[in-house]
Amino acid sequence: MHEDPRLAPAWSSTTSTTAGRVAPIFVENPHVRPGQKEVIVIGGGFAGLNAAKALAGHDEVHVTIVDQRNHHLFQPLLYQVATAGLSPADIAVPIRSIFRSSRNVAVHLAQVTAVDVAKKWIATEKVRLRFDYLILACGVRHSYFGHSEWETYAPGLKTLEQAVEMRRRLLTAFELAENELDPGVLQALLTFVVVGAGPTGVELAGAIADISRTVLLKDFRRIDPQRARIILLEAGPRVLAAFPPELSTRAERDLTQLGVEVRTGTAVTAIDADGVEAGGERIAARTVFWSAGVQGASLAASVGVTLDRAGRIPVLPDLSLPGAADVFAAGDIVHLELSGGVLLPGLAPAAIQTGRAAARNILASVNGRPRTPFRYRDKGVMATIGKHKAIGRTGRLNLTGYVAWLAWLFVHLVYLIGFKNRVSVLAQWVWSYLFSKRGARLITAREWRLDA
Amino acid sequence: MHEDPRLAPAWSSTTSTTAGRVAPIFVENPHVRPGQKEVIVIGGGFAGLNAAKALAGHDEVHVTIVDQRNHHLFQPLLYQVATAGLSPADIAVPIRSIFRSSRNVAVHLAQVTAVDVAKKWIATEKVRLRFDYLILACGVRHSYFGHSEWETYAPGLKTLEQAVEMRRRLLTAFELAENELDPGVLQALLTFVVVGAGPTGVELAGAIADISRTVLLKDFRRIDPQRARIILLEAGPRVLAAFPPELSTRAERDLTQLGVEVRTGTAVTAIDADGVEAGGERIAARTVFWSAGVQGASLAASVGVTLDRAGRIPVLPDLSLPGAADVFAAGDIVHLELSGGVLLPGLAPAAIQTGRAAARNILASVNGRPRTPFRYRDKGVMATIGKHKAIGRTGRLNLTGYVAWLAWLFVHLVYLIGFKNRVSVLAQWVWSYLFSKRGARLITAREWRLDA
Repeated sequence: MHEDPRLAPAWSSTTSTTAGRVAPIFVENPHVRPGQKEVIVIGGGFAGLNAAKALAGHDEVHVTIVDQRNHHLFQPLLYQVATAGLSPADIAVPIRSIFRSSRNVAVHLAQVTAVDVAKKWIATEKVRLRFDYLILACGVRHSYFGHSEWETYAPGLKTLEQAVEMRRRLLTAFELAENELDPGVLQALLTFVVVGAGPTGVELAGAIADISRTVLLKDFRRIDPQRARIILLEAGPRVLAAFPPELSTRAERDLTQLGVEVRTGTAVTAIDADGVEAGGERIAARTVFWSAGVQGASLAASVGVTLDRAGRIPVLPDLSLPGAADVFAAGDIVHLELSGGVLLPGLAPAAIQTGRAAARNILASVNGRPRTPFRYRDKGVMATIGKHKAIGRTGRLNLTGYVAWLAWLFVHLVYLIGFKNRVSVLAQWVWSYLFSKRGARLITAREWRLDA
Repeated sequence: MHEDPRLAPAWSSTTSTTAGRVAPIFVENPHVRPGQKEVIVIGGGFAGLNAAKALAGHDEVHVTIVDQRNHHLFQPLLYQVATAGLSPADIAVPIRSIFRSSRNVAVHLAQVTAVDVAKKWIATEKVRLRFDYLILACGVRHSYFGHSEWETYAPGLKTLEQAVEMRRRLLTAFELAENELDPGVLQALLTFVVVGAGPTGVELAGAIADISRTVLLKDFRRIDPQRARIILLEAGPRVLAAFPPELSTRAERDLTQLGVEVRTGTAVTAIDADGVEAGGERIAARTVFWSAGVQGASLAASVGVTLDRAGRIPVLPDLSLPGAADVFAAGDIVHLELSGGVLLPGLAPAAIQTGRAAARNILASVNGRPRTPFRYRDKGVMATIGKHKAIGRTGRLNLTGYVAWLAWLFVHLVYLIGFKNRVSVLAQWVWSYLFSKRGARLITAREWRLDA
């Protein structure tokens, strides 16, 4: 209760955030009505979005989603933006527009710099925001296993900006090759290395093979894009380690048929501007993409619990944090052991389910009901391999080849419909994906530089 | 005739380019067959593209299009990308893909650093390329009338990168306003200034008014986007100076009805991070866009003819340069006086017509026929004002309001069909333009920074 709801009295202005900065103003949200509990959701990915959706319309709470980007991203199709199949706008929606009709949900665009779970506030660069309940859905970023200097040469694929940067590097490599006179440099320009053979790495490598074998085929005069080498490096013994072994074998065969050189058991030991060192061999390559590992967002370090080795937050069965019953984690940032000892996977369905479960438990607490432990329902796993093949597992059923690809398409279209909320987008997407040449073959950069 | 067509003997490696650099390798295009004349087209805009199209399939010539960007841009709709109505890929096509079936056309992605019209070569950073005929279609860039320091605060709208940057600034201003507590800063964040009331300025101001009055209406909780001020500044006595006076009057009325403050006779005297000084008044505005003037691309300075005050190239009636009969100019870079003393306008139809005419005259010379003087066919002018109004003139017929907007839509759709070469794109575009909310409301940047 404040006289001017827009400007609540300044909170202690001396508490510093983890970054050593001071966020002097404490803002009470003017739309929180007396009696409403304030729920802050950090992150507008699958977990945060679905948490907020589950809380929308429940007038006993007010929700503020805090994200540093204005859009929710349909991550599973991000590799399509990186390989010029889809435009950024096809797989992203402004978070605000999703909640435009939910009057108890607000969106605050800012980077969270610190969290105080005891005093119940979060800080951005400019303000501190108070919460009654907090959902940490801040996700993961790429891990370079202690070699952060590799990131410059081998960008990962987590954001639209990174996808557009990958697209720029991929397309620019062919353009520079077309103009190159030195045969050695030419070969390095036409060599593409993908590090890490999880679903993203497999889908990336397959799409690069696809674009070089079909889409670009007739566009060049000096070079033959079909001669491009695509090398998929994996330190572990097989591709798609999270899939059943027989599907890994099939995926490797399909990739090889597409023209991808698959090298398992090959750890990368160095990456620089000229290429990669892996398995004792030097591979000259001007374009390297990274999809080898993830770690929790750096914010997780400030919540005051001991993280796992990948920087994820261990949670109790109700998804709340040990010692902070009103703070929850959801999505990829969660470290939760399932029955059988395996960890909750970093997949969209797991993020959606944890987001909803955290929201349900908050509503339970607000309404004086007991919380329920989270139960993961395994929807299976899928990955496309090039344009007309995929592999997938759902329950005990394994799918491969064209049938699996149709299943993949169906699942992603169903999700996209719910996501974009408009059949028109579905129509556009089906049309352009099935029939068109790559429509988004644009080389753009914030500051134009031709050289990678 | 060279033994290895890919690597012609190095030309004198000591000739320096205008930038003081040396381009040591002289490349003979391997696809130029004996007897074929090499035509280099600098620039893949409307002029260069149409010149190359007119030369494609004529086996007496080989064409190399040199551009620093890989895409041809449908410039008249660039303001729609800047205001989140269309995606970059909707209005851009890879130049290569346009010419994939034209075996006598090659594309060389590079920035041209120098031209020697006497010795008949052009230089990029890496190579020199020989020509028999040259078409300079390098276009124009923004002119800040000697105040190049204004560009940081007031970007122009010529490239996709600039359009995405404008979109980022426009959408970010609303986001920062939503979080702002200082009323003065809040007002500056919600004040948008467009400098220059030519067609681009009018269309930009109208689209910003449109997005703030309709699209963003329900998305914010603290601010009311309708309260955004959009100020259109024009140093001259009326908006749309190239249109008949009665249309300028109508455009001003329509803009005012949309909520745009139109200030004619108001010259800008200063621009900085906090706003604009114009007509003796200080306007606090965090977002300023520039559409006040253009000048010829800097390359024009190296062709050895005296340019006009705007840096454009004076041409002879056949569009060739005085003293360099095999070098032509086409598009916005052309300075050509029409009958009545007016200059050839910087419009897409003029660019298309000059590109085709230059190509026709090259074919005439190659085939021993006489060249013909260029004749401009005035197709008229058009500009949209917001989403459902426009003004236009064709011949002596003036169009206004909704009828003019339908005409505008029809003309642009017809051009887009030819441009994208696919009815599917037309269908997508009509659908999303007519029925959808702004689909491309993405804030993206190469390096993510929330602050403008």
